Amino acid sequence: MVADGWPDAHATRLLGSRHPILLAPMAGAGGPRLAIAAMAGGAVGALPCAMLVPDEVQSQAAEVRAGAAGPLNLNFFCHEMPGPIDDRAWCALLRPYHDEIGIAPGQGSGPIRRPFDAAMCGAVESARPEIVSFHFGLPEAALLDRVRATGARVLASATSVAEARWLAERGVDAIIAQGFEAGGHAGRFLGAPPDEQMGLFALLPQIVDATGLPVIAAGGIADGRGVAAAFMLGAAAVQIGTAFLHCPESLASPGHRAALASEAAERTAFTNLFSGGLARGLPTRLSDELGRVRAEAPPFPLATVALAPLMREPGFAPMWAGQAARLSAPEPARDLVERLARDALALLAREA
Amino acid sequence: MVADGWPDAHATRLLGSRHPILLAPMAGAGGPRLAIAAMAGGAVGALPCAMLVPDEVQSQAAEVRAGAAGPLNLNFFCHEMPGPIDDRAWCALLRPYHDEIGIAPGQGSGPIRRPFDAAMCGAVESARPEIVSFHFGLPEAALLDRVRATGARVLASATSVAEARWLAERGVDAIIAQGFEAGGHAGRFLGAPPDEQMGLFALLPQIVDATGLPVIAAGGIADGRGVAAAFMLGAAAVQIGTAFLHCPESLASPGHRAALASEAAERTAFTNLFSGGLARGLPTRLSDELGRVRAEAPPFPLATVALAPLMREPGFAPMWAGQAARLSAPEPARDLVERLARDALALLAREA
Repeated sequence: MVADGWPDAHATRLLGSRHPILLAPMAGAGGPRLAIAAMAGGAVGALPCAMLVPDEVQSQAAEVRAGAAGPLNLNFFCHEMPGPIDDRAWCALLRPYHDEIGIAPGQGSGPIRRPFDAAMCGAVESARPEIVSFHFGLPEAALLDRVRATGARVLASATSVAEARWLAERGVDAIIAQGFEAGGHAGRFLGAPPDEQMGLFALLPQIVDATGLPVIAAGGIADGRGVAAAFMLGAAAVQIGTAFLHCPESLASPGHRAALASEAAERTAFTNLFSGGLARGLPTRLSDELGRVRAEAPPFPLATVALAPLMREPGFAPMWAGQAARLSAPEPARDLVERLARDALALLAREA
Repeated sequence: MVADGWPDAHATRLLGSRHPILLAPMAGAGGPRLAIAAMAGGAVGALPCAMLVPDEVQSQAAEVRAGAAGPLNLNFFCHEMPGPIDDRAWCALLRPYHDEIGIAPGQGSGPIRRPFDAAMCGAVESARPEIVSFHFGLPEAALLDRVRATGARVLASATSVAEARWLAERGVDAIIAQGFEAGGHAGRFLGAPPDEQMGLFALLPQIVDATGLPVIAAGGIADGRGVAAAFMLGAAAVQIGTAFLHCPESLASPGHRAALASEAAERTAFTNLFSGGLARGLPTRLSDELGRVRAEAPPFPLATVALAPLMREPGFAPMWAGQAARLSAPEPARDLVERLARDALALLAREA
């Protein structure tokens, strides 16, 4: 499965895919169909599992196995759940919208993002993915040991050099350097102020130097130029999300697809409206009217609860996107992977 | 003067330097000595002129001409000066510091950054630099025509694709794509919200695609890896600032140098405390205690006025730095340029 044209054959072997390209896990937009298509092109497939229950993880993994060969990455979140919250200010802020649409705010647990736990670990032990990746840090040591015991490679995201060092000390196999250009949730977990977030150009080589581990570049990469540039900066592989949102196999809504192809795609920014955590996305009616960051939003992931019923309406659903959305256009995911690899290898002056 | 190893010989000819590397103009830290040393290594030299008077521009340019051959870039700001301001809230905020040090707040015009005007244009006509670059947009058409009539190439900074299109429509010779990683003042001038600022990884290829002009990559580039990566993303040249702050020829203070070499250099962020405009720098006592962005600060560039007398004290002077400060170490600027070129050309698999 391993092509020799890439600069870092060791990293390609670590991942086990034909190309050192990982489909980014994208909750709400990824799924088995997108993973299968990306894997057919030679990328590492991914299933975003933070909003699934263990049975869904197993059934989706089985669906991917039935449809594609190659390595599969199951992605989980490792946030700490906040204690009891008072969401009255948040509900008051949203009330005009609930009134307008004529629905009640969500309550209780709702469709929130949940941290990796023992039940999910059981799903991993059954599904036996080649790769398990974590966002917002790592699970507790006992769970991490169980994951490692399955033979899975362990990846985790860092948004700062300090986070990368923290992960390296805990023995991850590779680090995903998540530049602030990336769409969706920034994986910050050591409490650094958001205004210190780093662009991939600066973050990637500093993580390479600080850890000595294989580093997977993420954020703002959407074509062969970006892939080749990441390798010049020392990356062993790249993880790409937004470019795949345009693909017919993604679950992005028609409105999301239209916005990705418009000039609005030059105007992504972080918002905390949809989960309580900072995530990069396109402008929406909600963010246009309330502002992108509101103190009333409960802590991650609980802002989703009251908002959830509204999210089915246009203007109230998140439209995650990274800063390079406009570099892509709709094409099948398999073709996208093959084009990324071909163009990058041509720029790197090696043969595909 | 032009080496053939670089991917875009046309751009290197446009600049006229041995290497497609521009020393960034850095008000307060750059000057003739740094320009001369960088030019000796084969870079385009730069003089930051926004805080100079026309006579100083002419005398500094003459000093550079006496010390180095090769192209020189005179850099100017093009902001609009705000009307009369009420700085009482700002002075009240700073009052404990003025009291502690025992000095009065600055008043009147002070050492502020001034926009390019007819008198400066006269200095350009006398000094006849090969390159004139503008930050915060462009001067009025009549002044721009006078600059062009000197034969100088005109460069200008864009922090968004929209700004790049605006500059291209006005006929600049090349665009400096300023990623949000860059130290010092972000050159935003079309009023886009600061939270939409783009990382170089995403900004650079989109400006290349949108304008078709030669694009000079800036922000987060500090070693040969970054130079090579910029070329992969379509850059015709790179502009580098922070790496030169470490050089013995820069005017960076001892405290600034020490901070650049410490872990604090991983913690740069935008602050408006020193000018009223957003500029990226290292933490200082002032930003630690007041927070990095304060609404009390008068609009750019007038926050400097009241603060100016304090700026001579440690903790109250800005310490500009980009996000890649830690990739560099002290070395003579000539050696730095030669190393950047050598390392980048090796990565690009071409001969230096």
